[in-house]
Amino acid sequence: MLKRYLLAPGPTPVPAEALAAMSMPIIHHRSPDFIPVLEDAKNGLKWLYQTANDVLILCSTGTGGMVGAVNNFFKKGDKVLVINGGKFGERWTEIGKAYGLNVEEITVEWGYAVDVKKIEEALKADSNIKGVLVQAVETSTGVYHDIEAIGKVVKNHEDILLVVDAISAIVAHDIKTDEWGVDVMVGGSQKGLMLPPGLAFVCVSEKAWKRAEESDIERFYFNLKTERKKLKDNQTNFTSAVTLIIGLNESLKLMKKEGLENVFNRHARLAHATREAVKAVGLDLYSKESPSNSVTAVEAPSGVDGQKIYKTLREKYGVTAAGGQAQAKGKIFRIAHLGYADTFDVIIALAAVEMTLKELGHPVKLGSGVAVAEELLMQ
Amino acid sequence: MLKRYLLAPGPTPVPAEALAAMSMPIIHHRSPDFIPVLEDAKNGLKWLYQTANDVLILCSTGTGGMVGAVNNFFKKGDKVLVINGGKFGERWTEIGKAYGLNVEEITVEWGYAVDVKKIEEALKADSNIKGVLVQAVETSTGVYHDIEAIGKVVKNHEDILLVVDAISAIVAHDIKTDEWGVDVMVGGSQKGLMLPPGLAFVCVSEKAWKRAEESDIERFYFNLKTERKKLKDNQTNFTSAVTLIIGLNESLKLMKKEGLENVFNRHARLAHATREAVKAVGLDLYSKESPSNSVTAVEAPSGVDGQKIYKTLREKYGVTAAGGQAQAKGKIFRIAHLGYADTFDVIIALAAVEMTLKELGHPVKLGSGVAVAEELLMQ
Repeated sequence: MLKRYLLAPGPTPVPAEALAAMSMPIIHHRSPDFIPVLEDAKNGLKWLYQTANDVLILCSTGTGGMVGAVNNFFKKGDKVLVINGGKFGERWTEIGKAYGLNVEEITVEWGYAVDVKKIEEALKADSNIKGVLVQAVETSTGVYHDIEAIGKVVKNHEDILLVVDAISAIVAHDIKTDEWGVDVMVGGSQKGLMLPPGLAFVCVSEKAWKRAEESDIERFYFNLKTERKKLKDNQTNFTSAVTLIIGLNESLKLMKKEGLENVFNRHARLAHATREAVKAVGLDLYSKESPSNSVTAVEAPSGVDGQKIYKTLREKYGVTAAGGQAQAKGKIFRIAHLGYADTFDVIIALAAVEMTLKELGHPVKLGSGVAVAEELLMQ
Repeated sequence: MLKRYLLAPGPTPVPAEALAAMSMPIIHHRSPDFIPVLEDAKNGLKWLYQTANDVLILCSTGTGGMVGAVNNFFKKGDKVLVINGGKFGERWTEIGKAYGLNVEEITVEWGYAVDVKKIEEALKADSNIKGVLVQAVETSTGVYHDIEAIGKVVKNHEDILLVVDAISAIVAHDIKTDEWGVDVMVGGSQKGLMLPPGLAFVCVSEKAWKRAEESDIERFYFNLKTERKKLKDNQTNFTSAVTLIIGLNESLKLMKKEGLENVFNRHARLAHATREAVKAVGLDLYSKESPSNSVTAVEAPSGVDGQKIYKTLREKYGVTAAGGQAQAKGKIFRIAHLGYADTFDVIIALAAVEMTLKELGHPVKLGSGVAVAEELLMQ
């Protein structure tokens, strides 16, 4: 028997409360049974998003939410500024181009956070820009972009929407959607929300809804205006993913019990301990700036293949973390502390990393990272 | 305590085997654990679809599969012939128009099946038609359109694709995808496949893939060419809906054990008994022609509101069937015998209908429908 641990940045483990609820007999999405379920989900998401606006619930992966953010609030040919600092920044560009937007990029070296001044300059230099598209957490590099600061810059421009992919950030980072001026914020079920994949969430500001009136991009499945109308009656436009939404309410219940501030603090505490511990083991963080509280990206020591670390963690120790993607493949490995994660998930990750490095012939003092983590996690 | 029974045409009940499997700890969609899971699903769907082509697996409701069928295989301005005999026929038209297709309709009176000769004539009269879009089972009317006969007509036209929404038909009807010349066949998880909502399936012929090369419609999430490429490596393009796909394999296992022929016969047997029994109770079928094996649509007797029948069934007897949609609202109710359904689901439905009608003051001989059903179900 090899006991298994899922410590990847999505999908993440699902708590027993949600698994049990999702195993209950199916209810019908157009029956009165479902109305209070969707109402709870709607209210819970508003609380989590810290917003007065509705958070739409789509049956898709998070990428579907990103598509909805692009093809509901822009016109063909609209110029948008994409902050591209990793694989998911690239995805904004791909989606924008697929729907005929005129995409300008601020490319950010992988492992670094965007320099907000550059955004400010770009917006000043070109009054045609209609939107800024960015990740809160760029999963591929483990970096958090400063959404609050970006929000302050975008707020000065009446015509510009701030569109944030917060799929890997929500729950792990305190993002004040309304207060910071985020116009469209996309989330997904399989990350901080501790659920299986299958739901995307999109929160939309009044400013963005006004822009939706002008949009001329073809859409049908991700038609957010129709979803908004349906949500007012506690319905979704197409068949609701009933089991996942029932699970969502369980996740939200757990988070409400813990308190939003505590949820954020827990993620900050786990992330901090993980970062300090890997440094104590003699490893370097891949995120050179603004490391996220969702996932810690670590450089493989020279001479050791990052994918081999990923594989050994999995095959020998049963720990499913993540390797690197695209240009970072082989160079890094990533450990998530996201969603249903606590003290001993970090300890497991660090012990497994120490044992794996030793296994792969890299000099490491066993227990050195764990000791640091224990110290920090006791606080 | 009111024991609950779900007898609606989707979502349908999920067998305990699938619920239990979906409650297992989450696995990562890019890890080696998931490769054999997706391979099993892929092979199982081929078996169910009776096809040599790949069946793509999307994370969306069935409607997402319909969108993919439209925006991957046609060009803007392409003329398509939609068979519109109900709410889901209308949906083909809506999707076609949303993506700039030139939609011509053959409208079919609700409750009737399409006259295949009309399709033949329409295709002969207009050589610009590039596709025929039809439902196998039109859920809103309970009618099955004769896909085999339509396939024979479309086969004579090299340039025309036959696109079938089989969301409510698969498992209940024997549809020989390849043999009958179906080019694109869409399915969904929450019907005959006995799963929660969240997966769409799209089977694509070589003829359709060739047409995909010419398509100029914007797409990103429902990009089937990319899904095809990924599926060859037992992956999906975006995050896989891991729990649902694990459940899918359990459903497929149950069906394989029963045998495909037996699965179809079971549905035919349940549907036949339901139809004869409701007639014995003195009710008329709403499906005047070609009633489906998935769902039986029944006219409310004159003076009785169909929605009241639906409500009484639910609230007093715990039976969630379905009412009528759009123009049929208030006039009909619908009983499904789809997916995880057997003898006593039909008996429950009929007993509940008899009791409900009596409750609502309609003259009915209690047990009269059940007696006929028992007789037929014993065969």
